[in-house]
Amino acid sequence: MRAFRITAPLTAPTWQEVPEPTPGPGEAVLRVTAVGLCRSDLDMQEMPAATVEPAGWLFPFTLGHEIAGEVAALGEGVDHLSVGEPVVVLPASSCGHCWYCLRDAPNNCSNAGAGRGYGDNGGLADYVLVKNARDIVPLGGLDPIHAAPLSDAGSTAYHGVDRIRGALTPQSTAVVFGAGGLGSFAIQFLRAVSPAFVVSIDMSTDKLAMARELGAHETLEGVNDSTLDQIRELTDGRGADALLDFVGIDHTIATGIAAVRPGGKYGLVGAGGGRLATLGEWFHLLPRDGEVFTYQGSTVRNLESVMALARREMIQSPVEVFSPDEIETAYGKLRDGSLRGRAVIDFAGS
Amino acid sequence: MRAFRITAPLTAPTWQEVPEPTPGPGEAVLRVTAVGLCRSDLDMQEMPAATVEPAGWLFPFTLGHEIAGEVAALGEGVDHLSVGEPVVVLPASSCGHCWYCLRDAPNNCSNAGAGRGYGDNGGLADYVLVKNARDIVPLGGLDPIHAAPLSDAGSTAYHGVDRIRGALTPQSTAVVFGAGGLGSFAIQFLRAVSPAFVVSIDMSTDKLAMARELGAHETLEGVNDSTLDQIRELTDGRGADALLDFVGIDHTIATGIAAVRPGGKYGLVGAGGGRLATLGEWFHLLPRDGEVFTYQGSTVRNLESVMALARREMIQSPVEVFSPDEIETAYGKLRDGSLRGRAVIDFAGS
Amino acid sequence: MRAFRITAPLTAPTWQEVPEPTPGPGEAVLRVTAVGLCRSDLDMQEMPAATVEPAGWLFPFTLGHEIAGEVAALGEGVDHLSVGEPVVVLPASSCGHCWYCLRDAPNNCSNAGAGRGYGDNGGLADYVLVKNARDIVPLGGLDPIHAAPLSDAGSTAYHGVDRIRGALTPQSTAVVFGAGGLGSFAIQFLRAVSPAFVVSIDMSTDKLAMARELGAHETLEGVNDSTLDQIRELTDGRGADALLDFVGIDHTIATGIAAVRPGGKYGLVGAGGGRLATLGEWFHLLPRDGEVFTYQGSTVRNLESVMALARREMIQSPVEVFSPDEIETAYGKLRDGSLRGRAVIDFAGS
Amino acid sequence: MRAFRITAPLTAPTWQEVPEPTPGPGEAVLRVTAVGLCRSDLDMQEMPAATVEPAGWLFPFTLGHEIAGEVAALGEGVDHLSVGEPVVVLPASSCGHCWYCLRDAPNNCSNAGAGRGYGDNGGLADYVLVKNARDIVPLGGLDPIHAAPLSDAGSTAYHGVDRIRGALTPQSTAVVFGAGGLGSFAIQFLRAVSPAFVVSIDMSTDKLAMARELGAHETLEGVNDSTLDQIRELTDGRGADALLDFVGIDHTIATGIAAVRPGGKYGLVGAGGGRLATLGEWFHLLPRDGEVFTYQGSTVRNLESVMALARREMIQSPVEVFSPDEIETAYGKLRDGSLRGRAVIDFAGS
Repeated sequence: MRAFRITAPLTAPTWQEVPEPTPGPGEAVLRVTAVGLCRSDLDMQEMPAATVEPAGWLFPFTLGHEIAGEVAALGEGVDHLSVGEPVVVLPASSCGHCWYCLRDAPNNCSNAGAGRGYGDNGGLADYVLVKNARDIVPLGGLDPIHAAPLSDAGSTAYHGVDRIRGALTPQSTAVVFGAGGLGSFAIQFLRAVSPAFVVSIDMSTDKLAMARELGAHETLEGVNDSTLDQIRELTDGRGADALLDFVGIDHTIATGIAAVRPGGKYGLVGAGGGRLATLGEWFHLLPRDGEVFTYQGSTVRNLESVMALARREMIQSPVEVFSPDEIETAYGKLRDGSLRGRAVIDFAGS
Repeated sequence: MRAFRITAPLTAPTWQEVPEPTPGPGEAVLRVTAVGLCRSDLDMQEMPAATVEPAGWLFPFTLGHEIAGEVAALGEGVDHLSVGEPVVVLPASSCGHCWYCLRDAPNNCSNAGAGRGYGDNGGLADYVLVKNARDIVPLGGLDPIHAAPLSDAGSTAYHGVDRIRGALTPQSTAVVFGAGGLGSFAIQFLRAVSPAFVVSIDMSTDKLAMARELGAHETLEGVNDSTLDQIRELTDGRGADALLDFVGIDHTIATGIAAVRPGGKYGLVGAGGGRLATLGEWFHLLPRDGEVFTYQGSTVRNLESVMALARREMIQSPVEVFSPDEIETAYGKLRDGSLRGRAVIDFAGS
Repeated sequence: MRAFRITAPLTAPTWQEVPEPTPGPGEAVLRVTAVGLCRSDLDMQEMPAATVEPAGWLFPFTLGHEIAGEVAALGEGVDHLSVGEPVVVLPASSCGHCWYCLRDAPNNCSNAGAGRGYGDNGGLADYVLVKNARDIVPLGGLDPIHAAPLSDAGSTAYHGVDRIRGALTPQSTAVVFGAGGLGSFAIQFLRAVSPAFVVSIDMSTDKLAMARELGAHETLEGVNDSTLDQIRELTDGRGADALLDFVGIDHTIATGIAAVRPGGKYGLVGAGGGRLATLGEWFHLLPRDGEVFTYQGSTVRNLESVMALARREMIQSPVEVFSPDEIETAYGKLRDGSLRGRAVIDFAGS
Repeated sequence: MRAFRITAPLTAPTWQEVPEPTPGPGEAVLRVTAVGLCRSDLDMQEMPAATVEPAGWLFPFTLGHEIAGEVAALGEGVDHLSVGEPVVVLPASSCGHCWYCLRDAPNNCSNAGAGRGYGDNGGLADYVLVKNARDIVPLGGLDPIHAAPLSDAGSTAYHGVDRIRGALTPQSTAVVFGAGGLGSFAIQFLRAVSPAFVVSIDMSTDKLAMARELGAHETLEGVNDSTLDQIRELTDGRGADALLDFVGIDHTIATGIAAVRPGGKYGLVGAGGGRLATLGEWFHLLPRDGEVFTYQGSTVRNLESVMALARREMIQSPVEVFSPDEIETAYGKLRDGSLRGRAVIDFAGS
């Protein structure tokens, strides 16, 4: 079968012929129908072996970690799926038997340094092997083209919203830094699962316009010197009850931490390389009696929630569709920022 | 000042002249602007002394427990309000110093057998005394006519929704028995604070039509022999994740308990006099590993949440307005069921 | 191999020769080392087919649901255990793929009407098949004789304690009705995982003496007309913060429900056939704003917690040991109440 | 009356004569019986006006923030206390009417920059004014000498333990950095309210010996290069489930953050001036899907819990007692580290 692969560290991916996978016990093979492209696909071409091999990456591997497909074959012991069923699958390849997997926390799996599309074979191929069939969620009638991006951009954003939603009452204000792929999902999730007043902050006025369409009650341009005052003004001087930072650079972390009220929550989602590189002490800077957290990925339970919201038309998943032959064009538009919505490769139509 | 009072057990209320109240330390006096009428006002005329005096009721007392007003005078030590401020107030007259009040759970106050409008002086008067000023919440720009019913019908319904909302995910189904005063608020709150699929069940097709307008995803007519199957059909055979019963008779309790899935929650809010009067054992009948609860009233935190939802126009509070002189007409329409919305007495316009 | 089996409804169990089991994918076979006997073993001999076959029971089946053993063989896809490893196993035979099992709530498994030792083959045999290897927990150095009863009596009691422990502060009082097998574990767990003041109530002064040895701060004789006043006296008049009822007859349910303070929790664990068969209404009888719950069985997470407590010598598991040949003697002592501790059949020594 | 006061910034405290306070509405005056001395008392003599006056400090003020006493006089509206009642009082002087105080979170009070003994009059005097009588908790039979230190060192440590206890199961490991005043209380609280395995780490072998006496299961000497490996070895390689850092310098923060497992909690309690001053990014350094928090002070609810534990003899509060005339000696021993237990000034015996 064809597969779009990175064959060695620091090389560009190409289409290649590889054998079709077959499932072992507890595994599943999916016939791929749609795959969302992610900026991290581009980053992977620039990662040296020394960075990724210690995490368990093996070369060559097939790209594509936002995968929709149909169950093509099931290994022994997989009882909750049936052949032919349309599905999506989480990117992370949880082992299913470590301390975290046995506790329904596969996002913290001890053996998931590599995953489908990063260090192990992903979905930009006719078939993809899923080593732990529990990572699969039925489509339930959704269009695979729009559902594919839900499996990563959607589900990861949901995990952050799920961590803060219990603290959000009708009097709460939730702030979202960044209104791009994950941020725009977070805005929608906050509206769907909480009564919070939602503030979206981004440098791009285009993205802020879309944020308002997707449900943001208020938008602010850029994270800058007046952001803190603006957030306080919107919150009777108290500060945000919760803030999700999908940018994650020094500046957004410092501002975000300062903008959260005592008892509030700051979640760092964006892998922007930032830290609280200020002059001050944690004891006085971190939100008093609050909570600071970060995470990567999400769980099957998160993905199921996202799929339910999509099925009930409570969220949108805007996409631009490309055929497998147009993959370089798609990545090009992703690279130059000219996409409107997630780029999705349509394997079913090809 | 004028006051609409029950002078003795088993007598009808009448307008009378009484002295204006003055506030002691920690107390407040409100100039009344609007009062919602409640079916329980009618019930109180039929309660014998033996039933209510042990709970601390004293006769005569002024009716009216859904009160909006303006702060007329503040006792010493009340710092969070100012004279002239438009407000609403909880019906229950929490003592402020018992074990429960000190823990922000005034709805369980040990000394609140009587409250404003039931056993103690309520709001159907020019002024009302609030013994614990912490029971007062600012109007924040809301119309007192529409806000008055939020202080009891609204806030009590919110308390029930607040108890179940943590368990409601985008995959959850919440069922509401009864779409009247409290039930119709509960439907709105469930939509506002949770992503649950909301099912409203009532005997009245009129009320079901309103339930759909207020946000119910699905409506079913009456609680009867097919209700259980209908709920299971809507929930992949599992049963409701949570069910709030605003009727509370034998039949709705039995059906509600049966309709909740293992791990689900059943909340009894309606004081319909019911119990699980069946042949079966609790061990086998109650939802396995679930939760059964009941409660009365609500907390200041609940009322604040309801007010915030109203200010942000996330809920409606339909009313029919009457002058103080029309109070008998208003109670008449309440009695014969011909009201559309809560009956509210407008003191400000009089 | 030998197996102690009920061959048909309403017949007494006998030793029989049956084939040894072999594991399929996801399954495990244990060589049995120790099995605790349970009063329900005796009840099963008196259950007509009409009662149990609808729940999925099949005859004949081998008794014994409190099982310790060593892994004898593993099916494909079982990665977290190794052959020869000493283990215990939950009684309930969770399916591993229903909605509840996928959510780490196997105690609510939709397909677990029958389990190891009730309706399906249990541990009173040389080998036992475990259909879902995730139900197995390593012994971690514990003596299988003392560990076997932890898998049911211990783990089930722990589940109830785990449901209430979050609400127990150093000012809380937890009451336990019944100081027998499960109740005496609950007393120990409450002491180990919470700071609550623990009150044990039982009719037997012998059991109360043991309850004190196991950590009960206070003991009361029998659930009777003065129980309610006694509990209130111990709690500044408020009532119990939480109460676990391991008896579950009409009288204990009525007293237990009444003894719980507003906001408190009542857990029904004993399958005594009771219900709240009183004259009163639920709305006025159930603890105001509290929680009433019941459940059966427990989860792997519960069992792991119990095993950790035993390993750290924070709980005791008193037993009387019998050889397989003495099984009728053991059941006889169980029947006539002359056991001190759980009766355990020692298969390893035979 | 006599009072031990700092009269101006950067000056040493001295005994002075000042008028006795009288209580306004909602206030109380206590006759002081015992006051614990705290290292921060020494620090206050070295704080310039520019640091503390913006926080609301006024000079002169009386030192002493760990106060036990008897109610001498009550202002209007204080109903839950009676004159003559022996009590302790929180150090923080919460306003009682801000957003946080109204939500039972006085530790986050918006108006509590100064408190009893720091910027406002404290307990090293014959009488002390308590501006919000809700900050007072009855002694309930405890010796005021031993109870005084519970009001700050005890209650603050409890707040941290209370934030992590919900996550602590019998399989959990909780690590405490620092076994001094607060740390040694935390060790005791962890043992009293949770089943966690408790590891105490301190540089002083004397303190570690006491930590073992107070209940630590394991002790490690100093936070150094091998600490991380030692913690992992004690936790099956996973890391600590929760860690409370009562030191709070760069090195302990970096080690503590690294030692917490994915999903675990790191609480910074010690105001050691540290921050995560490392080369790395937060996204990769903070415990994945975990929680980082800091806080100051505690709540009345915390103090009540600590008092309950002390009354039930579940914790110890070791002290060295001095008369008011010996106060300089006491501070001297505090300064040179030669105290065994908290220094407490006994006003009742003088």
